[in-house]
Formats: sequence, C-alpha cells, structure tokens
Amino acid sequence: MSESNQPASSLTVADLQQRIQEMFGHKDQQRGVDGTFMWFMEEVGELAAALRTRDREELLGEFADVLAWLVTLANLTDIDLEEAVYHKYCVGCPRCRKPVCECQMSAKP
Amino acid sequence: MSESNQPASSLTVADLQQRIQEMFGHKDQQRGVDGTFMWFMEEVGELAAALRTRDREELLGEFADVLAWLVTLANLTDIDLEEAVYHKYCVGCPRCRKPVCECQMSAKP
Repeated sequence: MSESNQPASSLTVADLQQRIQEMFGHKDQQRGVDGTFMWFMEEVGELAAALRTRDREELLGEFADVLAWLVTLANLTDIDLEEAVYHKYCVGCPRCRKPVCECQMSAKP
Repeated sequence: MSESNQPASSLTVADLQQRIQEMFGHKDQQRGVDGTFMWFMEEVGELAAALRTRDREELLGEFADVLAWLVTLANLTDIDLEEAVYHKYCVGCPRCRKPVCECQMSAKP
C-alpha cells in the first residue's frame, strides 16, 4: 500500500501524540487552542482539495497534516487521543455495539 | 492522563484503521467520500464546540469521532494513515527537519 521504501512503521496513537508534543509543544503552547484550530482547519481545507483531485502525494501529505494538527489539539487540551478513540471505537460500534456495525445508513454512528 | 479504569491500550494507527474498516467499511463504501466528508465535518464542528466549553467528556468523544472519520476517509481513498504520518512527522519537523522544531512561529510546519 505504501510507496515508500522505508520499512513498515509501528506507530501507536500515543507515540504519535508524544512525538508531536516533543517536536512542536513549545510553539503550540504559545499559539494556544484557537490559533491551533485555525491551522487545523486550513489543513482540513487542503485535505478537501486533495480528496477532490485524488492526487496521491497530496492525499498522503494532507492526511498526515490533519492528523498531526488533531493530535496537537489533543495535546493542548490534555486529551489522551489513544484512550479516547480506543474506548469509543475499539469495543464495537458506539451505537449498536456490534463488531460489524448494523446501524441503519441514516443513523449517526 | 486517562480517567478510564481500563488498562492502557496500545493501539497503532494501522490497527485503528483496520478496525474502522472492519466495523464500518461496508457502510462507508456505500456512502462514498463526499458523504463521509460531510460526517467528518459535522464532527469537526462538534469538536469546535467542545474546545470552547472544555467539557472533558465531550472532548474525549469528539476527538475520538473526528479521528475515526479521518481514518474512514483514509480507508475510502486507500491511504495508509500510519505510513503517511510516520514519514511526514516522525523523522523531524517537515520544514526544518529538527527533532524539536525551530521554525518561526509564523511559518507553516
């Protein structure tokens, strides 16, 4: 699936959150939540463009950016993103609780 | 950091992506990228509200939701999210390449 010649990584959500904190935390604290949310939204817009063109290199970069900024927001608000997503999504569908979701298509998971 | 009484999870980004695929992939394929992006944006809006109130339970849920929908978009576009974020963010700052970013505050990472 990956076009890189790097070996497959094994990156936990917690590791990613820690790496982002170490790399950017000093700047993120200065900027604060609101300013960081602006950057996050800028990247979301760029992701939308990449989703429209389906340019693979752009998609790779923009997905990475959106995830990194989401993790940054979690750092700034003391949210453990791995715990949050594990508890909501790794014990079955949040709504129907099934391992393969059986909710109606119109329902919000 | 976590208030849950569950043991700490060890969830790779790749595992999360696979779990979301198994749980929701059949519905996601039906809905497609554009409809999925709409759900993603709805959750981003809810995250913005939670960031405003700083209600902890809301933050946990909305961070989980935004991440899950981002992963869903990656599934629909055949993007390996772990590879994408690893290669861009786990080998130093994408711009200055330093392990602790030295870019100017105004620069876009």
